[in-house]
Amino acid sequence: MALAKQHGVAVGAHPGFPDLVGFGRRELRATPREVEDFVVYQIGALLAIAAAQGVRLQHVKPHGALFNMAVQDSALADAIASGTAAVDRSLILFGLPGSELVAAGRRAGLRTASEVFADRAYEPDGTLVSRRKAGAVIHDAGAVVERVVRMATDRTVVAVDGSVIRLDLDTICVHGDTPGAADLAARIRTALTAAGVDVRAVGA
Amino acid sequence: MALAKQHGVAVGAHPGFPDLVGFGRRELRATPREVEDFVVYQIGALLAIAAAQGVRLQHVKPHGALFNMAVQDSALADAIASGTAAVDRSLILFGLPGSELVAAGRRAGLRTASEVFADRAYEPDGTLVSRRKAGAVIHDAGAVVERVVRMATDRTVVAVDGSVIRLDLDTICVHGDTPGAADLAARIRTALTAAGVDVRAVGA
Amino acid sequence: MALAKQHGVAVGAHPGFPDLVGFGRRELRATPREVEDFVVYQIGALLAIAAAQGVRLQHVKPHGALFNMAVQDSALADAIASGTAAVDRSLILFGLPGSELVAAGRRAGLRTASEVFADRAYEPDGTLVSRRKAGAVIHDAGAVVERVVRMATDRTVVAVDGSVIRLDLDTICVHGDTPGAADLAARIRTALTAAGVDVRAVGA
Amino acid sequence: MALAKQHGVAVGAHPGFPDLVGFGRRELRATPREVEDFVVYQIGALLAIAAAQGVRLQHVKPHGALFNMAVQDSALADAIASGTAAVDRSLILFGLPGSELVAAGRRAGLRTASEVFADRAYEPDGTLVSRRKAGAVIHDAGAVVERVVRMATDRTVVAVDGSVIRLDLDTICVHGDTPGAADLAARIRTALTAAGVDVRAVGA
Repeated sequence: MALAKQHGVAVGAHPGFPDLVGFGRRELRATPREVEDFVVYQIGALLAIAAAQGVRLQHVKPHGALFNMAVQDSALADAIASGTAAVDRSLILFGLPGSELVAAGRRAGLRTASEVFADRAYEPDGTLVSRRKAGAVIHDAGAVVERVVRMATDRTVVAVDGSVIRLDLDTICVHGDTPGAADLAARIRTALTAAGVDVRAVGA
Repeated sequence: MALAKQHGVAVGAHPGFPDLVGFGRRELRATPREVEDFVVYQIGALLAIAAAQGVRLQHVKPHGALFNMAVQDSALADAIASGTAAVDRSLILFGLPGSELVAAGRRAGLRTASEVFADRAYEPDGTLVSRRKAGAVIHDAGAVVERVVRMATDRTVVAVDGSVIRLDLDTICVHGDTPGAADLAARIRTALTAAGVDVRAVGA
Repeated sequence: MALAKQHGVAVGAHPGFPDLVGFGRRELRATPREVEDFVVYQIGALLAIAAAQGVRLQHVKPHGALFNMAVQDSALADAIASGTAAVDRSLILFGLPGSELVAAGRRAGLRTASEVFADRAYEPDGTLVSRRKAGAVIHDAGAVVERVVRMATDRTVVAVDGSVIRLDLDTICVHGDTPGAADLAARIRTALTAAGVDVRAVGA
Repeated sequence: MALAKQHGVAVGAHPGFPDLVGFGRRELRATPREVEDFVVYQIGALLAIAAAQGVRLQHVKPHGALFNMAVQDSALADAIASGTAAVDRSLILFGLPGSELVAAGRRAGLRTASEVFADRAYEPDGTLVSRRKAGAVIHDAGAVVERVVRMATDRTVVAVDGSVIRLDLDTICVHGDTPGAADLAARIRTALTAAGVDVRAVGA
């Protein structure tokens, strides 16, 4: 707790499909009822682990394939939101701006946060370019930083087809398993601060 | 919740070793730190599942090999008690009367409950006769009921060597995987009530 | 081995998705390469278990969702066939008559067997009626027996829309988790024998 | 296969307790019958994976806690040897020189190989110094290389108490998860060759 406060960070749960070998990145055709159970179970376990360290969970962001499926599947999105609310109504649900997940969070009475991805290319409709397509991930750190600053200050991003799209955002995702992730996060933070953006935990 | 209240029952967590294939009944030489982590994780998950059904967890009783090892191993017992307290200080820790587990619960500031086993034979020192020995489990339902009533009214039981030993008790275990368990529980309850014993959930 | 020979039975592997909680009955979007790995791993483990009992594996039949997906997905079907062939080229691959699985088995140089389902309703195109639809499973044992005898003697079955379709068959599936499965299998065998059909293991 | 032959290497199975989270390094009180099943299952799976790559398994060396327990427990050692033999009688069983594992391998009619550890300290009785004691692992690469050459040319090693003990050896273990393992293996090979020792796969 002391540490979390001292560094101005917050902790969230990242529930996904129970597919450890596939790291939750493979679609699993589970029912909404099963998905709700996965979410309750995983948030509950992490909530206790955090509590044992004196830390409160702030938010929930579905992981991998579950996140991607819930962008457009309202039944899955409702299952995630309802599982989250069942555990703790004060949790903030993260989702792609304008996605079914954000809508479901609102229906469940949860506070929601719109999340953008620092290093991912966007389709003109505001969804992420699939990782199966070339150019899905932006590897140039300078370009990533520039995009994020524009998103944060201008609420716009250039999509893969060159069009400029609007993007609502409350939080920015930097993937922890990208090589150099900590460095990239530091550069983004510095650039945002330089651009006059006040960076803090969503629930702060 | 409604159902739990209506039937006068309470729900507890039964954390054990992460050995699903062995059903938690094989000893695993985990460190106290690992055991504390197992306990926090498992109680946390069940707490959320219960919360999603509107039910509060009342108690924690370690399962299988972990329970047996903690009877005499104070480091494991402390790990269990401390993991339990880290999740929720109002949980009641169940343990064999006079065991390290009950002592550890008290050290951790938890409320504890002494548990006796309806269908298990006792050694003269108050520990359970090992399942590897003949006569460890009492199969005759009439004998089981009689023993339980004696334990509840007289605080004594006849050990395998014929000696009469004292046993403190707050709660009685009837194994759910014994064939006819529901019937046996009903007979025990009826007999206890007839003997003037008031049966209710430990935390009620 | 002695037992297998004495009873005229044969043993096969039933590889599926590594989703134990879902019993392999949920679709998992794994790549063909991953599916080939699952198949190699699972057949290999069972082959050794059988060998340790003096039994030879005769066939491979994919399980649950993997079986259903491979009916129409030739890349998955090829992955299954190629994993099977990589372990043992003498294994017989089971599949729905006319399915991609049977075709893939032939492409991989495997012997194949067409399998019909005793208690499942058929669509006019020869695929199984989905379990999500009413009438997918035929519960009346008499009707099941009658259908199987007709399939075996006449190579036809009445589909859900009343049309009569042709079905090739080498083997008949009776689900082991259907209540009364052993009885049903015995009735089917008796009826087939009475109808002059010689019942034996596919590879015998 | 081509690659294995070209580089003069051989592949073996490393079966252990089914405790993935603990990486098989925690003792699990499984019965000999269970251990035999673990061994059959794991060797079988790897045998098929190797076969699918055109590679033959050469040997079996139990992993982690199972290896350590089998050094002195003849029932576990017999279970491992018998599971190995049940899968493939031509597999070579690796074990600590003079251990129960080597004796059990001989009882099961298997070819055995005595294995020494490049970077581990030895007790005067020829067992490894427990990892829980200081000095269990030798970190200085030069010292490791020197010890190995002495073991290979002189069949002796200096134990922790300074005494010189005899050690039979057919194979040398370099732990793959030691930082710099590949380098260390190369240095050991170079030094052995320089000392006139002919290094090749055990079964070659």
